[in-house]
Amino acid sequence: MSLNSFGRLLRVTTWGESHGPAIGSVVDGCPPGLPLREADIQPWLDRRRPGASRHTTQRRESDAVRILSGTFNGRTTGTPISLTIENVDARSKDYDKIAAAYRPGHADYVYDAKYGLRDWRGGGRSSARETAMRVAAGAIARLVVPQVRIAAYLVELNGDPVDRAGFDPDAIEHNAFFCPDCRAAERWGQRLDQARKHGDSLGAVVECVASGVPAGWGAPIYGKLDGDLAGAMMSINAVKGVEIGDGFAAARMTGREAADQMRAGHDGKPHFLANHAGGILGGISTGQELVVRVAFKPTSSISSMLQTVDRAGQETEIRTTGRHDPCVGIRGAPVVEAMMALTLADHALLHRAQCGDRR
Amino acid sequence: MSLNSFGRLLRVTTWGESHGPAIGSVVDGCPPGLPLREADIQPWLDRRRPGASRHTTQRRESDAVRILSGTFNGRTTGTPISLTIENVDARSKDYDKIAAAYRPGHADYVYDAKYGLRDWRGGGRSSARETAMRVAAGAIARLVVPQVRIAAYLVELNGDPVDRAGFDPDAIEHNAFFCPDCRAAERWGQRLDQARKHGDSLGAVVECVASGVPAGWGAPIYGKLDGDLAGAMMSINAVKGVEIGDGFAAARMTGREAADQMRAGHDGKPHFLANHAGGILGGISTGQELVVRVAFKPTSSISSMLQTVDRAGQETEIRTTGRHDPCVGIRGAPVVEAMMALTLADHALLHRAQCGDRR
Amino acid sequence: MSLNSFGRLLRVTTWGESHGPAIGSVVDGCPPGLPLREADIQPWLDRRRPGASRHTTQRRESDAVRILSGTFNGRTTGTPISLTIENVDARSKDYDKIAAAYRPGHADYVYDAKYGLRDWRGGGRSSARETAMRVAAGAIARLVVPQVRIAAYLVELNGDPVDRAGFDPDAIEHNAFFCPDCRAAERWGQRLDQARKHGDSLGAVVECVASGVPAGWGAPIYGKLDGDLAGAMMSINAVKGVEIGDGFAAARMTGREAADQMRAGHDGKPHFLANHAGGILGGISTGQELVVRVAFKPTSSISSMLQTVDRAGQETEIRTTGRHDPCVGIRGAPVVEAMMALTLADHALLHRAQCGDRR
Amino acid sequence: MSLNSFGRLLRVTTWGESHGPAIGSVVDGCPPGLPLREADIQPWLDRRRPGASRHTTQRRESDAVRILSGTFNGRTTGTPISLTIENVDARSKDYDKIAAAYRPGHADYVYDAKYGLRDWRGGGRSSARETAMRVAAGAIARLVVPQVRIAAYLVELNGDPVDRAGFDPDAIEHNAFFCPDCRAAERWGQRLDQARKHGDSLGAVVECVASGVPAGWGAPIYGKLDGDLAGAMMSINAVKGVEIGDGFAAARMTGREAADQMRAGHDGKPHFLANHAGGILGGISTGQELVVRVAFKPTSSISSMLQTVDRAGQETEIRTTGRHDPCVGIRGAPVVEAMMALTLADHALLHRAQCGDRR
Repeated sequence: MSLNSFGRLLRVTTWGESHGPAIGSVVDGCPPGLPLREADIQPWLDRRRPGASRHTTQRRESDAVRILSGTFNGRTTGTPISLTIENVDARSKDYDKIAAAYRPGHADYVYDAKYGLRDWRGGGRSSARETAMRVAAGAIARLVVPQVRIAAYLVELNGDPVDRAGFDPDAIEHNAFFCPDCRAAERWGQRLDQARKHGDSLGAVVECVASGVPAGWGAPIYGKLDGDLAGAMMSINAVKGVEIGDGFAAARMTGREAADQMRAGHDGKPHFLANHAGGILGGISTGQELVVRVAFKPTSSISSMLQTVDRAGQETEIRTTGRHDPCVGIRGAPVVEAMMALTLADHALLHRAQCGDRR
Repeated sequence: MSLNSFGRLLRVTTWGESHGPAIGSVVDGCPPGLPLREADIQPWLDRRRPGASRHTTQRRESDAVRILSGTFNGRTTGTPISLTIENVDARSKDYDKIAAAYRPGHADYVYDAKYGLRDWRGGGRSSARETAMRVAAGAIARLVVPQVRIAAYLVELNGDPVDRAGFDPDAIEHNAFFCPDCRAAERWGQRLDQARKHGDSLGAVVECVASGVPAGWGAPIYGKLDGDLAGAMMSINAVKGVEIGDGFAAARMTGREAADQMRAGHDGKPHFLANHAGGILGGISTGQELVVRVAFKPTSSISSMLQTVDRAGQETEIRTTGRHDPCVGIRGAPVVEAMMALTLADHALLHRAQCGDRR
Repeated sequence: MSLNSFGRLLRVTTWGESHGPAIGSVVDGCPPGLPLREADIQPWLDRRRPGASRHTTQRRESDAVRILSGTFNGRTTGTPISLTIENVDARSKDYDKIAAAYRPGHADYVYDAKYGLRDWRGGGRSSARETAMRVAAGAIARLVVPQVRIAAYLVELNGDPVDRAGFDPDAIEHNAFFCPDCRAAERWGQRLDQARKHGDSLGAVVECVASGVPAGWGAPIYGKLDGDLAGAMMSINAVKGVEIGDGFAAARMTGREAADQMRAGHDGKPHFLANHAGGILGGISTGQELVVRVAFKPTSSISSMLQTVDRAGQETEIRTTGRHDPCVGIRGAPVVEAMMALTLADHALLHRAQCGDRR
Repeated sequence: MSLNSFGRLLRVTTWGESHGPAIGSVVDGCPPGLPLREADIQPWLDRRRPGASRHTTQRRESDAVRILSGTFNGRTTGTPISLTIENVDARSKDYDKIAAAYRPGHADYVYDAKYGLRDWRGGGRSSARETAMRVAAGAIARLVVPQVRIAAYLVELNGDPVDRAGFDPDAIEHNAFFCPDCRAAERWGQRLDQARKHGDSLGAVVECVASGVPAGWGAPIYGKLDGDLAGAMMSINAVKGVEIGDGFAAARMTGREAADQMRAGHDGKPHFLANHAGGILGGISTGQELVVRVAFKPTSSISSMLQTVDRAGQETEIRTTGRHDPCVGIRGAPVVEAMMALTLADHALLHRAQCGDRR
């Protein structure tokens, strides 16, 4: 019941603070015999790595992952896989100010309220740096469900949406925003430059699609696939909303509009005429694409001056001068993918456990 | 790791099918000594009970709860509390048709895909009837956190929102929609009548506010209060979206707009100048009101004819003629409250476990 | 993390007090499609039922089990199976005395110390009556691992051991003691009559053997099969010791004596020349017979007068006059079998989850 | 549900192989504000460290622990504590032979049977090296329950028991055997020298006593303190038996003999006239000393030639020539203490969670 663990059968426990010597995770329950070397994880980390463009934090972390256990001769052994990344470029002095004052929108105050003390260096445990370990663990999860393809991308930045008509999957990896619409990417670049200039930050919406998921993953009632996905996504730093399929738009529909009617498919399985449900019914996958959207609030760390109080309860002001992403949603996309992979791999194992010998 | 259990320390396990002899739940981990009789649970069930107005299903269930264990002389003993409700008005013959054909929007197909068989009577385990046990368990959870007040109400039906300016908490219990705006309630009644006449159904958005939650409940990283709330809400039948605080709207804001700045409060605690975050930062409560919004899709059971396939993969059509809520979101409101109560009570115990002796 | 639940994937939650209206359990995670009717469970309960001979309690419970959910047309559906047994012959007045005074060897005092109150009728939750639900759930577990045969029997009563030379498996079901040695059974009958006459009770050792368990069930490090078995057995009322294979005798051996050497078997698998380890190495089954021994203390409820204190801390004396087993170890044998079945079924599913597609 | 994790609220996850780059653990759920530096852990590790006398393995590991997260300015922060120890003196070549052949009494065969492959270097994950992390985590657990004193010591080696009459707690730390009887220690030294000379090894029994445990820790039914202790102890390498209080001897007693009668104590609590139950009734602590005994089989790694088979199923012989403890029970004593500490700390938190505000 570790509160720093995710998953039931494929279980990830992460540890580490932003400015401690290292961060890491333990991935337990991985099937044996899967080919796994550091080179299988590193590319996913590189996609999330800070400092990749001017639109992400300029903190320079190599984020080189090491595997300390759980593999032998390049294959998983079924024992816990320990992953670690050293913290290289941690400038704690940037944070001297926040030792005393609480940054609005950050966990500073609540950590003190809960624990009575906190590691204030870089936000400590509440830093988004933890998400690097999600991405690393997610890379292992992908190996567990090789039949599944996962893609996350931004569909909206500061309220400016992509043009769905011009959706180009190939564009996603070719701009600084994981944006499937080149023209939107251009506009977003200008918006972000503008925001940064004004000491401000922007929010974004990430969409994630998983294809290749067979019908039957997930489980009633409190192990629903959508319930688990919602919990997984909402646990990512700065996320404030999650929707599956049409999500909040479904609340504005009628039953006839929202019905995913079925016809006979070529393969004996139903062919769905629509996917308003986002590939999940009753908590179980339908065999269609899984569609999840995730709302990221704007980065709370901004260089504008904000009113706040300090540990002693005195009023003060604070501007956050460290190196920060002007839009955390951007680097959030690889994290969303990782949480999707972890959730699906876990449910693949759960399904095999209960239904593995079904005739 | 029961998939039909919710919560970590206050742990609810539900069982039962829509048309079986009974439904029930086991609430484990409840603190001892709390006054608890059936009369403490029944009122909450009555709020959710079917047949209360023409806008909810006409199935007539008395939903009389029995406590079979875990109390003695009207107090909880700390041992598992077994709750059960008999299924009285289960007309399985209404469902003969769906034994063979899959109802669009329902879990019929995925249960067959997962398990190879299903209890098709009334949707079996996937029926919203299960939510009665959430409400019953939620009534116990409220006793665990008596300092917390929880209210859920509809803020939107079929895209028609309440007028926030005319928000009247007293109105909520005085219309058929848990609606805080009398005029909206009137409009909604007409919309629903119209929809039912056309064999259709409508979606809705439920908002839930919990006040009295102290700062410090919740825990990084995978036990975040918002992560758990998102999973809890998304596990409710027909829910497709969850947002905390400003939610998706936050994704359209700038960092300055979304900042909940602080001033010194009268009680030595920070006074927040806004609550865009919905009372949670870094997964931990801030001491402000918790605000969650939940999107319910329109009821999938509609009497319009829909295209589908049967178990043999043959194409057919189906209309659902049972007794159904034209808008599941309405009776969803008490369920949302229950999940809020269960999540908070669980976190109250978790917090006491780890930080109970903090100076 | 329910403390009244057992198992990880096949998860049993029990509820109920000795003198409440009923006891019950919820079995979650059962594979779908298994034939299951009440008649598949009842025979196992009948073996454990009180009142079967003069050597067990004269409380007359029919122990008729009802299945309230989780099956359809005689097959498991994969959803939670709710089992319940009504309490029929509960004479609470027998227990008036113990409302105030603490029975030595019972949980009376510690329940008060922990919870501040207790259901004193018949021991409440701490009564061995709860073990009926273990046996019922164990019957389902057996269906999950049909390849496994489990037999538990007494090998020692009040220090008087069976003669291993005369071990007769057929004898086990033909005496009142689950004793594989007819002559020992005769002696034990006399010992028990004697003890009862003197208002006393006797301890016993139960041995349980599971055959048909393949190599590979169990998991390092904290999910070891022997660790889980030890926890399972020690959770049974009145159990004070558990050993695997040679157990405590192994502590008196040398490494050469205790070595289970191997030769090539006919089936390509190792043929072990001995089984000192009891069929488990490194927490994982070897493919040999699993051998567990369990020590039951003498029944604490005796009609001899014992010194004790009451709730107010005043000294008093108590003799327990209810209807009690003079040797709880006897009816413990079916319970030991059930815990073996539950542990193995859980590990069978766990193994399939992680290693189900291993080449 | 990680199988490499222990505990519910104070949760330890260990990782690492005997001959990998390092071993480690993550301790989650620790209360905040506890003073913790590496120097608080190291002494406990030093007691268990290999190479301390000629009676333990000559592998030379400094076992210097590092804390990588979860503390700040020498205090726990409430976030996961990551501990790691580098493997320094790992001579994998000693193990070339066992790459192919299965060592009797070891997990070699079952790992292959389960996982299809294994890290054969030094036993990989199944090596007792893992227990170093138990000891390290146990040191943290002690800080959580400072009121508890824990002492483990050998009471029997190769069937030769200590003299209870000459029990001297001060002797325990002054011989190579954690032996409370100097004369037994002398005899044991000779026995071990003899065994080593003959390429053999010896078993032992470790007793562990915890004092200062208040009445009320533990929980019915599957979270019983004795059930958890049994599982904890049986998960230690080479352990084959666990008993609480009189254990197997209780099975030879009568109810009158085994009764722990009570008189009024000076402090308003019961004064028990005996402790046959070992300080636990109904799974809950009585306030007396907790007494647990643990049987360690003789080390399986012996230099005598033993019959076995290899991975191809061919018959062969093997002698284990690495550096091994001739009696694993000796270094088992600190591990038993650690598991006691971890179990108690976990239950202390569980108790506070459920009953923390009991009047």
